[in-house]
Amino acid sequence: MDRRGFHRRVLAGGAVAAGTTTALSLASAGTASAGPDGAGPDGAMAETSTTAAPVRTAPAGGRVRHMRLYAERLPDGQLGYGLEKGGAAIPGPMIELTEGDTLHIAFENTLDVPVSLHVHGVDYDIANDGTRFSRSHVEPGATRTYTWRTHAPGRRADGTWRPGSAGYWHYHDHVVGGDHGTGGIRRGLYGPVVVRRAGDVLPDKQFTIVFNDMTVNNRPVGPDFRMTVGDRVEIVMITHGEYYHTFHVHGHRWADNRTGLLSGPSDVSRMVDNKITGPADSFGFQVIAGEGVGAGAWMYHCHVQSHSDLGMAGLLLVAKPDGTIPGYDPHHPPAAPGAAAPGERDHRGH
Amino acid sequence: MDRRGFHRRVLAGGAVAAGTTTALSLASAGTASAGPDGAGPDGAMAETSTTAAPVRTAPAGGRVRHMRLYAERLPDGQLGYGLEKGGAAIPGPMIELTEGDTLHIAFENTLDVPVSLHVHGVDYDIANDGTRFSRSHVEPGATRTYTWRTHAPGRRADGTWRPGSAGYWHYHDHVVGGDHGTGGIRRGLYGPVVVRRAGDVLPDKQFTIVFNDMTVNNRPVGPDFRMTVGDRVEIVMITHGEYYHTFHVHGHRWADNRTGLLSGPSDVSRMVDNKITGPADSFGFQVIAGEGVGAGAWMYHCHVQSHSDLGMAGLLLVAKPDGTIPGYDPHHPPAAPGAAAPGERDHRGH
Amino acid sequence: MDRRGFHRRVLAGGAVAAGTTTALSLASAGTASAGPDGAGPDGAMAETSTTAAPVRTAPAGGRVRHMRLYAERLPDGQLGYGLEKGGAAIPGPMIELTEGDTLHIAFENTLDVPVSLHVHGVDYDIANDGTRFSRSHVEPGATRTYTWRTHAPGRRADGTWRPGSAGYWHYHDHVVGGDHGTGGIRRGLYGPVVVRRAGDVLPDKQFTIVFNDMTVNNRPVGPDFRMTVGDRVEIVMITHGEYYHTFHVHGHRWADNRTGLLSGPSDVSRMVDNKITGPADSFGFQVIAGEGVGAGAWMYHCHVQSHSDLGMAGLLLVAKPDGTIPGYDPHHPPAAPGAAAPGERDHRGH
Repeated sequence: MDRRGFHRRVLAGGAVAAGTTTALSLASAGTASAGPDGAGPDGAMAETSTTAAPVRTAPAGGRVRHMRLYAERLPDGQLGYGLEKGGAAIPGPMIELTEGDTLHIAFENTLDVPVSLHVHGVDYDIANDGTRFSRSHVEPGATRTYTWRTHAPGRRADGTWRPGSAGYWHYHDHVVGGDHGTGGIRRGLYGPVVVRRAGDVLPDKQFTIVFNDMTVNNRPVGPDFRMTVGDRVEIVMITHGEYYHTFHVHGHRWADNRTGLLSGPSDVSRMVDNKITGPADSFGFQVIAGEGVGAGAWMYHCHVQSHSDLGMAGLLLVAKPDGTIPGYDPHHPPAAPGAAAPGERDHRGH
Repeated sequence: MDRRGFHRRVLAGGAVAAGTTTALSLASAGTASAGPDGAGPDGAMAETSTTAAPVRTAPAGGRVRHMRLYAERLPDGQLGYGLEKGGAAIPGPMIELTEGDTLHIAFENTLDVPVSLHVHGVDYDIANDGTRFSRSHVEPGATRTYTWRTHAPGRRADGTWRPGSAGYWHYHDHVVGGDHGTGGIRRGLYGPVVVRRAGDVLPDKQFTIVFNDMTVNNRPVGPDFRMTVGDRVEIVMITHGEYYHTFHVHGHRWADNRTGLLSGPSDVSRMVDNKITGPADSFGFQVIAGEGVGAGAWMYHCHVQSHSDLGMAGLLLVAKPDGTIPGYDPHHPPAAPGAAAPGERDHRGH
Repeated sequence: MDRRGFHRRVLAGGAVAAGTTTALSLASAGTASAGPDGAGPDGAMAETSTTAAPVRTAPAGGRVRHMRLYAERLPDGQLGYGLEKGGAAIPGPMIELTEGDTLHIAFENTLDVPVSLHVHGVDYDIANDGTRFSRSHVEPGATRTYTWRTHAPGRRADGTWRPGSAGYWHYHDHVVGGDHGTGGIRRGLYGPVVVRRAGDVLPDKQFTIVFNDMTVNNRPVGPDFRMTVGDRVEIVMITHGEYYHTFHVHGHRWADNRTGLLSGPSDVSRMVDNKITGPADSFGFQVIAGEGVGAGAWMYHCHVQSHSDLGMAGLLLVAKPDGTIPGYDPHHPPAAPGAAAPGERDHRGH
């Protein structure tokens, strides 16, 4: 079992001890697939679609997990969250939980200014709000443990239905450059959180796409993401900054509901391939790469015309099992082939 | 029974005669809780959460109701709607109906320019449109009765399902400063409308938050709202003006559907704590204050970074039953303690 | 049977041979009702509401259809798509399919610059993407056949539910004035696509409203649309360009879901009469004209205040069966009476 297979087992709740394990299962979206067993070879590997086998689903939650997180200055002057010193990336690491899990994050501030960790969607008391106003930020050089809790849905004593924590959420700084973290977010202090419900379908690959002002993942041009026809691909889409955007994907579409998947024939959710979104909105969905449309270099982009014209566009590089991508010129790729894109995470055990 | 207990009984359909009664049940969001029995003491009162008891629900509608409404110039030059002369506020009074109700509003224009009352969501014929184009505005000094009707859902003769009127709606001027009421809205001529369906869960407290251009309820800084852990709090969120916004609440989230509440385990609505919204959009939801997160000074704010930085933020002051708010410094409150905020309405009978 | 009756039969899947027939069933939204049997007389005709009869519904799809489409320069310098040479309009022709249908579009570029046809929502392989990047655009004077496929929902081999193609979609250029078609879209190269599910309710009339930058259907002032009380009217709403908008209709509302119709009492979709929307967003809905509110000149407009003030507004002219419109002054109509509006299509067989 290679490292990605290991990741998958951990993520699926395999019986591995906590601590270091949890840190692995929470591996950085940017680094998890960037090693020698990373995304690079994917395009050249023959792989069989797994869509004919029953899908893997999330097991019940309830674990208590621990991880470390660092706020760091990146070499180019931007800021990032990372799982280890020197490992920060933009977006920060994917943090994936199942309803019922509790996560303790020992968060160290290696910057020379106060910083924080504020999260959307999950449960935390006011001392974990990650705001200056609640005095829950972190001074330079200090470490603070933030605790996030999640819960499954259920019926309240008053008879009403209490929603669970499941959703496509995110975390970000709330302190740098003003009491709302405007400077910290602008320079890259944000990352994805996925909370699953027991039984939720698990993806083969995950990508995080953040429209932050006029950038994608703080890059002036959107990164490309590599996958193979038949992969169950999950996209977590987050917006930050000043502007509204419309997120569009060519050749693929999703349900505008909690999971991005239709639950069945009676689900009346609108199917969309384009969605307006504003700062701190987040949503996610899964598609079967190339389903009904085949391999290809499928664009994703902001559909605000000036935004796409200025670079808010990238490619979903959906390869055939033999690794080829019809209509895609490898001599003029929009990005270096084989390079793992920031925000990419591969869960397939091959 | 104090005044708020009385309100609750009227609102819940208690057998009180129409006329003055209706006016009370339609009491101004701004004034209902501003008296000596207002919101001020809430923070200092011990109260037991009511969430263990079955929720109160809306009874069937079908009443014919009458109220008076005034358009007024406020002392600071802004404009407002009010239930009595000298009682105008921004936002205007909460108007709450149940599907099947009819409401006649005797609307008097005390301004020196034509004004109107245009409503979203409910039924009215073209003579009640509240537009200059339909000649349904009101000249200075004149009074006009607007009639709004509502209906329950049901099956049409053609077999299709006819939706009911239930929803979080709103009213506003459509005449001042142009044929779309741009000047009237900018200066404060707007207010909330809630139409309930029989069986809908009723809240303990209601707050109306209007993002109007770069203000909250026409204030440069968002007002704070006081509540106690366990209160079933309803927030009606309306946007007006020029800009898009994203409405965010810390520590609480809601369902992006008609009621803001999940109907049960099969409801696939996305849970959100952040929502993009543009002029004349409206939505509402209920949360149990502090549920799963406890007491605290929980921020709400526009998440467009420059908007929050410029003041579009306030607090949900969620107190413990003993009145204390952990982490909240009463010596540096964002607003004077005990002052009722515009848009606040207390339905608890204590 | 007049031409509109013929249209209706073709659209409903009547047994008419393919080819020319298909072209007719795909008749231009702009031209279908502009002839001597067009929308003009509607207001003066007595007609009985058909809402008491069972609704017509979409039959099963599965047809293979062929049509021709032309990109043309219009006399005023704008650009349009049309079904025949000299017949282009803005928006382009309504293309209506049922899940399971395949459509081959022989697309001729009569412009002096490269152009394309890019579609949202339906299935197509990368060679039909309509982008310069995929080399699927069309040089001046050339013709290229684009193939769009659609599919019904169903269960995948892995047990998950695959959504069908049904939706309110659209097509547009992706090449003129930049690699995202910014110049082509700005000048009018866009149009609506509706994909129905077998059993979906069919409308009596269809209108397409496109907010394209600060125009409606590339006009500085929104066109008016004529209908009669009781008509089942479908509105397809598309946004393009740079700006966000909020689409508002007076006196009518719809469900914010796939069909715009509530499926029944358990459908928790939010009812709205105002919806934020950004470039390339699309949605649609049906209303019964004047239901519960009667005849009248009912405004629709962008509710961003400066946008409506600058002209992004028009009228739904809902006439009584005797043709009169209460409160509407025919001597000061916002548009010439009797003129068919761009985007209008009448399916009623009268």
